[in-house]
Amino acid sequence: MSEKDQELKDQEVAETAEQKDLEQESVTDELAELTEKIDEMDDQLLRARAEIANITNRNRNERELLQRYRSQDLAKKLLPAIDNLERAMATDVSDEQGINLKKGVEMTLASLQQALKEEGIEEIAAEGETFDPNFHQGVQTVEASEDAPANTIVQVLQKGYKLHDRVLRPSMVIVAQ
Amino acid sequence: MSEKDQELKDQEVAETAEQKDLEQESVTDELAELTEKIDEMDDQLLRARAEIANITNRNRNERELLQRYRSQDLAKKLLPAIDNLERAMATDVSDEQGINLKKGVEMTLASLQQALKEEGIEEIAAEGETFDPNFHQGVQTVEASEDAPANTIVQVLQKGYKLHDRVLRPSMVIVAQ
Repeated sequence: MSEKDQELKDQEVAETAEQKDLEQESVTDELAELTEKIDEMDDQLLRARAEIANITNRNRNERELLQRYRSQDLAKKLLPAIDNLERAMATDVSDEQGINLKKGVEMTLASLQQALKEEGIEEIAAEGETFDPNFHQGVQTVEASEDAPANTIVQVLQKGYKLHDRVLRPSMVIVAQ
Repeated sequence: MSEKDQELKDQEVAETAEQKDLEQESVTDELAELTEKIDEMDDQLLRARAEIANITNRNRNERELLQRYRSQDLAKKLLPAIDNLERAMATDVSDEQGINLKKGVEMTLASLQQALKEEGIEEIAAEGETFDPNFHQGVQTVEASEDAPANTIVQVLQKGYKLHDRVLRPSMVIVAQ
């Protein structure tokens, strides 16, 4: 091999090496880019999974609330009917027809109250209880006495009802003061 | 440079090139691996997003159904009360007490029916209608006549009710045959 040839060969080899260096550099850049992209996607995946968990939880809670208070609207609308029946029950009757009619009303009232109870609706305790603005609405006051200490409910003017822990209608009461 | 030196140098260069080849090969493998991993994660991300969309849709539908039929349980339990009141309304009364009582019952019935109507509950049309097993329950048959062609409902023994498109209780009917 002549010196010239050798030089050419050396140059060729050097060029190849340099090219390889360049290639390797670009590959290293690409590697870094891909690694960064993977980190980004990892983050997105984590977020997506967290979002799935959040949505699932939130929906379960919403469903439970909807389920728990599902009867609220209809129950509220039934309260005047219950009031009417209770008023009707206070009517005095004397003849057999009246007595029969009253029995029918009594049965109806009982079945309505049963239906409401099964759906989690109950009367708010009031008479003789301590006044609680969360459940009672004071519409009148009387002077407190030995039998009725201050802040005690002495009379219920209209019954209140609650659905589980939620007030459908507060009791309208007279409070000792 | 002696031939020996040149040979050594050649060998060194060759070795370096070979090592670079090896390095580059392993980098290329790594690149392929990362690209594969990115494809995989892309797929997982797509699935996660599809799942989020699915869950969100499913939950909206469930909520809508829960909302739409929320009064179903309470309404079903109210039907016997309505029956009772309707029966009570059929009682004859003669004296003023009875008349007052009946007025109270009438008001109650009206307010119950209004409450049910507002919640989407209505009576199933039956008398004079064509018998439909989805809404009517035939408990008796009579012979068809000119006034009552075959398959027509001639009498309702107990009213049926539906909540939107869902039957709460079918009408109990007598059908011409």
